[in-house]
Amino acid sequence: MGGHELAALFVFLCLLSVPFSAEARIRHYRWEVKYEFKTPDCFKKLAITINGQTPGPTIEAQEGDTVVVELKNSLLTENVAIHWHGIRQKGTPWFDGTGGVTQCPIVPGDTFVYKFVVDRPGTYLYHAHYSMQREAGLYGMIRVSLPPGIAEPYTYDYDRSIILNDWYHKSTYEQATGLSSNPFVWVGEPQSLLIHGKGWFDCSGLQADVCNATNPACSRSPYVLTVVPGKTYRLRIGSLTALAALSFEIEGHNMTVVEADGHNVEPFEVKNLFIYSGETYSILIKANQAPTRNYWAVSKVVSRNSTTPNGLAVFNYYPNHPRRSPPTVPPVGPAWNDVNSRLAQGQAIKARQGYIHSPPRISDRVIVMLNTQNTINGYTRWSINNVSYNIPDTPYLIAVKDKLYHVFDQTPPPDSYDFQNYDISRKANNSNATTSNSLYKLQFNSTVDIILQNANTMTSNNSETHPWHLHGHDFWVMGYGKGKFDINSDPKKYNYVNPIMKNTVAVQPYGWTALRFRADNPGVWAFHCHIEAHFYLGMGVVFEEGVEKLGPLPSSIKGCGDTKRFP
Amino acid sequence: MGGHELAALFVFLCLLSVPFSAEARIRHYRWEVKYEFKTPDCFKKLAITINGQTPGPTIEAQEGDTVVVELKNSLLTENVAIHWHGIRQKGTPWFDGTGGVTQCPIVPGDTFVYKFVVDRPGTYLYHAHYSMQREAGLYGMIRVSLPPGIAEPYTYDYDRSIILNDWYHKSTYEQATGLSSNPFVWVGEPQSLLIHGKGWFDCSGLQADVCNATNPACSRSPYVLTVVPGKTYRLRIGSLTALAALSFEIEGHNMTVVEADGHNVEPFEVKNLFIYSGETYSILIKANQAPTRNYWAVSKVVSRNSTTPNGLAVFNYYPNHPRRSPPTVPPVGPAWNDVNSRLAQGQAIKARQGYIHSPPRISDRVIVMLNTQNTINGYTRWSINNVSYNIPDTPYLIAVKDKLYHVFDQTPPPDSYDFQNYDISRKANNSNATTSNSLYKLQFNSTVDIILQNANTMTSNNSETHPWHLHGHDFWVMGYGKGKFDINSDPKKYNYVNPIMKNTVAVQPYGWTALRFRADNPGVWAFHCHIEAHFYLGMGVVFEEGVEKLGPLPSSIKGCGDTKRFP
Repeated sequence: MGGHELAALFVFLCLLSVPFSAEARIRHYRWEVKYEFKTPDCFKKLAITINGQTPGPTIEAQEGDTVVVELKNSLLTENVAIHWHGIRQKGTPWFDGTGGVTQCPIVPGDTFVYKFVVDRPGTYLYHAHYSMQREAGLYGMIRVSLPPGIAEPYTYDYDRSIILNDWYHKSTYEQATGLSSNPFVWVGEPQSLLIHGKGWFDCSGLQADVCNATNPACSRSPYVLTVVPGKTYRLRIGSLTALAALSFEIEGHNMTVVEADGHNVEPFEVKNLFIYSGETYSILIKANQAPTRNYWAVSKVVSRNSTTPNGLAVFNYYPNHPRRSPPTVPPVGPAWNDVNSRLAQGQAIKARQGYIHSPPRISDRVIVMLNTQNTINGYTRWSINNVSYNIPDTPYLIAVKDKLYHVFDQTPPPDSYDFQNYDISRKANNSNATTSNSLYKLQFNSTVDIILQNANTMTSNNSETHPWHLHGHDFWVMGYGKGKFDINSDPKKYNYVNPIMKNTVAVQPYGWTALRFRADNPGVWAFHCHIEAHFYLGMGVVFEEGVEKLGPLPSSIKGCGDTKRFP
Repeated sequence: MGGHELAALFVFLCLLSVPFSAEARIRHYRWEVKYEFKTPDCFKKLAITINGQTPGPTIEAQEGDTVVVELKNSLLTENVAIHWHGIRQKGTPWFDGTGGVTQCPIVPGDTFVYKFVVDRPGTYLYHAHYSMQREAGLYGMIRVSLPPGIAEPYTYDYDRSIILNDWYHKSTYEQATGLSSNPFVWVGEPQSLLIHGKGWFDCSGLQADVCNATNPACSRSPYVLTVVPGKTYRLRIGSLTALAALSFEIEGHNMTVVEADGHNVEPFEVKNLFIYSGETYSILIKANQAPTRNYWAVSKVVSRNSTTPNGLAVFNYYPNHPRRSPPTVPPVGPAWNDVNSRLAQGQAIKARQGYIHSPPRISDRVIVMLNTQNTINGYTRWSINNVSYNIPDTPYLIAVKDKLYHVFDQTPPPDSYDFQNYDISRKANNSNATTSNSLYKLQFNSTVDIILQNANTMTSNNSETHPWHLHGHDFWVMGYGKGKFDINSDPKKYNYVNPIMKNTVAVQPYGWTALRFRADNPGVWAFHCHIEAHFYLGMGVVFEEGVEKLGPLPSSIKGCGDTKRFP
């Protein structure tokens, strides 16, 4: 049997092994990743593009399809890895795209083939997952549709999508070098907010070859969402901010939330949607306002008293000219420090009737994770239970599977912190913090609870919002609370009736969030704050489960660290 | 036998196999490569440093020593490879450090061990050899001394060294993205010239956090060479400019040239030394002027009508204060377009009596290399005989040794061009130029002549200077000439008496340079213009000889391209 026949057989077997095999198709993408100068907010900056675009192309597939992305790295000196955010990678943990966790990065000149099944409908994301590369613009959306004849439990006329982002003018190199310096140098608030790759920055005082507000590629062309009066739109919204928690609203239009991270939500109406980095939502919006004008769509930084101006797009009622400015002042959005409203939205998101996945009643293990800022050897870091995460040179998946136990610390990280004595409202001291690259070994098929406990940072009276993202799984959001989690009383308030399943959830300032998941996906999975600088500074952990059940790893994920020395 | 015993045996065998085994030592270096903010000319820029320094540490060794450099890549997302410029790597071609030619690049987090013998005394260099990374500051000097009891054929009191460089404020990413764009965007002339990592830039109009002329790390502290009146100094000078050909002089002091690229030169005196990127010289300089003051040392761009201000250092007569400015205006240096003086210096460099290596009288093969600028599919490139070099994804050394012939073009590049009809004085057209990653296969132990033929660029009445560097060998400089090389008459004027051996030599505008070398070093070797942007744009070739004689390649050089798929 020749190579082609083997490949054909493999494709055939894949088709057999996924649901809806009759309709399942291969969705083949060829992407070239490289640097290009872009001016998303009028300021000229090197961005990492896919086939010349940022945001990259939207992946469109149907439930059960196999997505194949042939990724050519043309970045000159820089490696890359792309994470398929929200895709659980059942049976293909090596294609999760997390540099240092599931694969060696793709070196310049190499072409890496990602191949995975999108087994559930919904709205997902993809983005670079290697150091702080996501911020350079390497991201996009994945839309998975239902098979023909199956409908969502809500109706709409048109399906649209946007990605929200914040945008820095300094390169990720400059940012990362500052973060790794002593004294610590933070890049500060983002210069602009982008709505699907378009933003605005005040160029005054800058040379035209650096920043040109009359450049037709930027200020004169905000993102435009054109709607037909009377029609209902499903708007898929994803956030891939580096830092900012956002509020998104469309002037004069309420929104009905129907989907969160690929799961159907019991519908509820909001004036503005709070959305955190790594989350996706679908909202329904009816073009039911006066059709004689356009309206503003606004994204705004919340949870930080930010200097970043609001992001603006145009909600354009056909046949008004899409460049016609709305006659009104854009809405100012909610107060940045209104934690209660944000908490309330989180609590309002429940699984939709008929689409409830009931969580196991009991968990086998509870891991409490205290989120703190620390100083370690003079360097500013973020830590979980006083342990700041460092990525090893050899990816965990390969190290565990090939039993290269010397490449990472074998002392497991702690399941808890001293919650009797730790005062979460006091400025963090944590002089006993350490760095480690150890991982949590989870018993296969066990049920695990994670309590994310927020606390005061190293600045007095300050606690930040952290959106945590779990790879390879969805989790049930069992509950939120203010203050310190009480392990005796708080679990009694968990939602066992209709908890939403998500892959990303926020923990609010001085609060806690409780999650539950089944460790049923053989592989090695990152769980981390989705704020890029926070993960870079150690705010993450890694779970391992059932790796012994996996077959041989593809050689394409190897090539770094000890994966070269032990063939 | 355990790993340690094997390693010890290997070291023991190495010691036996090199000359002067009684004195030969291991020179062990541990280097961490990472980004840091530096202000060499007052402008703050991210530089690639070794152990926090740029220029990096000087390697000091004695003839016959084994140099071991354990290189840890801490660059976050960027790979690295370091070339040991002038070290022939006899028996260790895999440690030549040329990304894509002799090794896969070193990925972040990995530690790569370079290990090679420095088998000849003299002055050499090291620098990044991966895309345009050298420009970011990753370079340094190698000084190899004679064994005790053996002296150079010249005397001096002190031994000093400096590296000359030019410095851009834009990152190599920005530069390379411009070069790879259509329309072509060239970064322009360098912002400053550095003398051993120190330069000066006019900060006026820039914010103090970007450029601060009162920063004590820059303008107030030019490089100072302190001398004792009456003493003679050996000054080793290397150039690692990205672009500029330089003239270097010390006000009021003549210099005697005694070494070039590790070879003894029949001494001759100059007022100023022309030096091209990739060259090293030793000059003797006597502190024989009025000792009551300091003097300027000046580097100046030649061969281009450059806007870059001259680089300045202080030649400090002890006990004058090293910060005391010389009372004179710095010398202005030679005219930028005085080709005759530069050609004359090249012709003046002969092997020293008693240190002459006679070249073979006849060569087995002559390769004429026409150097031209071209446009290929709208992109600006440099080409050799109308072929512009592209680096393959799989390093040649591994591809040839492991017979992965599919990874590069097997059609050999041309040995000549249409020299009957090509008019080197006319604006280049070359509409038939192509790109290729094929290589020249040289018969092992054969003698090869290379004629570098310069020509007009794509700009009327313009021909540039190109310094060509050969890896793995020294070559004899057989002759220089103006105009088009005449294969019938010009070889008769070759210098067979005392040609200097070098590893880098310039071809002057509209002129030619003839080299001869023995293909006696099993391996795969780059030969290219040392101007970083020119090599990046295709101005280079690759030679292969005797790879079949090599033993197994170290696995540490693998990990990219097809070296992963064929273990």
